[in-house]
Amino acid sequence: MTAPVSTVLIRGTGLLGTSIGLGLRARGTTVLLHDPSPSAQAVAQDIGAGRAYPVDAAGVLIHDDGPSPEVVIVAAPPDVTGQVVVDSLRRFPAAVVMDIASVKVQIAADVAEAVSEGTITAQDAARYVGTHPMAGRERSGPVAARGALFTAAPWVVCPNEHTAPEAVESAEQLARALGATVYRMGAEEHDASVALISHLPQIAASLVASRLQETPAGSLALAGNGLRDTTRIAASDPQLWVQILSANAPQIVEILYGVREDLNRLIGTMEQPTAPGSRLDIAQLIAEGNAGQARIPGKHGAPPQAFAVVTVLVDDTPGQIAAVLADVGEAGVNVEDLRMDHSAGYEVGMLEISVVPGHKQELTDALTARGWKVV
Amino acid sequence: MTAPVSTVLIRGTGLLGTSIGLGLRARGTTVLLHDPSPSAQAVAQDIGAGRAYPVDAAGVLIHDDGPSPEVVIVAAPPDVTGQVVVDSLRRFPAAVVMDIASVKVQIAADVAEAVSEGTITAQDAARYVGTHPMAGRERSGPVAARGALFTAAPWVVCPNEHTAPEAVESAEQLARALGATVYRMGAEEHDASVALISHLPQIAASLVASRLQETPAGSLALAGNGLRDTTRIAASDPQLWVQILSANAPQIVEILYGVREDLNRLIGTMEQPTAPGSRLDIAQLIAEGNAGQARIPGKHGAPPQAFAVVTVLVDDTPGQIAAVLADVGEAGVNVEDLRMDHSAGYEVGMLEISVVPGHKQELTDALTARGWKVV
Repeated sequence: MTAPVSTVLIRGTGLLGTSIGLGLRARGTTVLLHDPSPSAQAVAQDIGAGRAYPVDAAGVLIHDDGPSPEVVIVAAPPDVTGQVVVDSLRRFPAAVVMDIASVKVQIAADVAEAVSEGTITAQDAARYVGTHPMAGRERSGPVAARGALFTAAPWVVCPNEHTAPEAVESAEQLARALGATVYRMGAEEHDASVALISHLPQIAASLVASRLQETPAGSLALAGNGLRDTTRIAASDPQLWVQILSANAPQIVEILYGVREDLNRLIGTMEQPTAPGSRLDIAQLIAEGNAGQARIPGKHGAPPQAFAVVTVLVDDTPGQIAAVLADVGEAGVNVEDLRMDHSAGYEVGMLEISVVPGHKQELTDALTARGWKVV
Repeated sequence: MTAPVSTVLIRGTGLLGTSIGLGLRARGTTVLLHDPSPSAQAVAQDIGAGRAYPVDAAGVLIHDDGPSPEVVIVAAPPDVTGQVVVDSLRRFPAAVVMDIASVKVQIAADVAEAVSEGTITAQDAARYVGTHPMAGRERSGPVAARGALFTAAPWVVCPNEHTAPEAVESAEQLARALGATVYRMGAEEHDASVALISHLPQIAASLVASRLQETPAGSLALAGNGLRDTTRIAASDPQLWVQILSANAPQIVEILYGVREDLNRLIGTMEQPTAPGSRLDIAQLIAEGNAGQARIPGKHGAPPQAFAVVTVLVDDTPGQIAAVLADVGEAGVNVEDLRMDHSAGYEVGMLEISVVPGHKQELTDALTARGWKVV
């Protein structure tokens, strides 16, 4: 593997910065790290994400005679990203500076403001590229980092009319080297997109999960995959999400107005469930949900496809799932998706294997012939 | 296997009625079916869920000299369940009559009303048991039915002060025979529980998915598991959900008031994201979501447990997942949960294997030694 770039500086060693460091080092890049938190930086170094960039006694980056970074990756918290980008453009006059914050308009505005204030020049600003790797986990911090975090993930690159083409090229090459798929779009389009596909689901999950705080345990024992799926991302980090939601507030609030309108209509209907037209209102909400849900693309960005599901009963003992899937593999059928169906109070599970519809019967026969209980 | 009951009549051959028929027939019970829709009934009979109960030319159930049902299972749409329960109590004076509708207070009220109107006697009403198998699928109709649908699922049984103990016993025995775990609670407690753990997630998923109707395809291409998970159940049947939400409207609307209050506070904050205290408000919503989410029990009703996740890179070709899991099985480690991590535009996937934390290192070593790329 050829290194996409010989030396990078990563400013910020949280989950994403550290993961980028691990991924680039594995590809032969020299990675320098800096984080204002010495402990976060120490963890990132310890797990092999790179070595420390030299700082003075006050913690300010200093030049030494080591290699100068060709690319500076700003992986700071969203709040301070703009400021660290501007500082990096000023401090490293030959480097491409890319950030990876999950909201893009504000950072670009911070850079433009620094130009108009004379902190940096327009030529400096041309070396800035806003990007957003759409990868993350419910967990955070360098301990959760992994070099393959970006494998198969979308990585949005948002150049504007001032961005130098070579800078865009560097950023995209780096994203591709880490295994990501590059999508290019404007900062406004990006922010509107993530408001809908990322920030709204986070808010909805938090609103639902928040209602469970006082629920009796006896009620929660009945919870199924519906509740689990809708609230999984409610486990996310409040400090990070405050910054993301604040930075994209104008885009999000427009969407929330629409949600509130639907919610108010639903509440009005549910207050008088026997009034004429009330059932139509409820049916319409669910039907609109059907229509929206059907538009979400499937695996690998393919159009949504109705896979056929073959469900196999498995004991909750080691090797059972493996044994089923070994037999699936021998049958020569590709597994498109997998799901364990959990339920409370029972030591047996249902393994749902999604396959292309044409292979369903073949797989069912093959598994039944091998003694599996296909249901 | 001993049949839990020798003869049952199932009134309504949708997904659940047909699945019960399949499950009971497999255990040796004689199953009679009736559905007002001849085509739904024909499908249920064709897939082996039971045989037709005799009806007259007008479609009304008639007595013949065949076996009389000991248990009548009312699996009609929620809207007409009360009426079919009362009809069944009147028509089969020796049978236990259980319904499986997902909202329970209204049905019990319908039965009580029939007693006070003199349609049935109080002795008749004592043979009624309200139940709710917490199993279902996004798909509906008899074609989606499967006998093992209830395996490992909770099945709530809601007796009231009028219910005969023998009737409760029959209903619970039948639920257990189908592999379900019985939870006994009052109808009010049941309805309040499902409003939170089932109806609220459905509404939230529909509200989020509804916003996607006009989203450009370019934005949806960036969708990840967060959006997919929060909107999966938005694919549910509008006709069924109108009935469920209407029947439980008083319980649901109370919860929606709380959601609206949180949403309004969030919107107020997001309209002025730089005002003092606004960040605290956002952080509080996310933190409350954390707290609620953490209360959802894990697999098999166990307390929530943080499983360790071992992530393996797999090619999207037949047999790859099987091969990984065969090696997991050989390592003697039990798989607690499985997840495929999908992303757009890439023919590679991440298989996330959840194991008890103490086995993580052992499994990582074992898989690495067998040549897998553990990330």
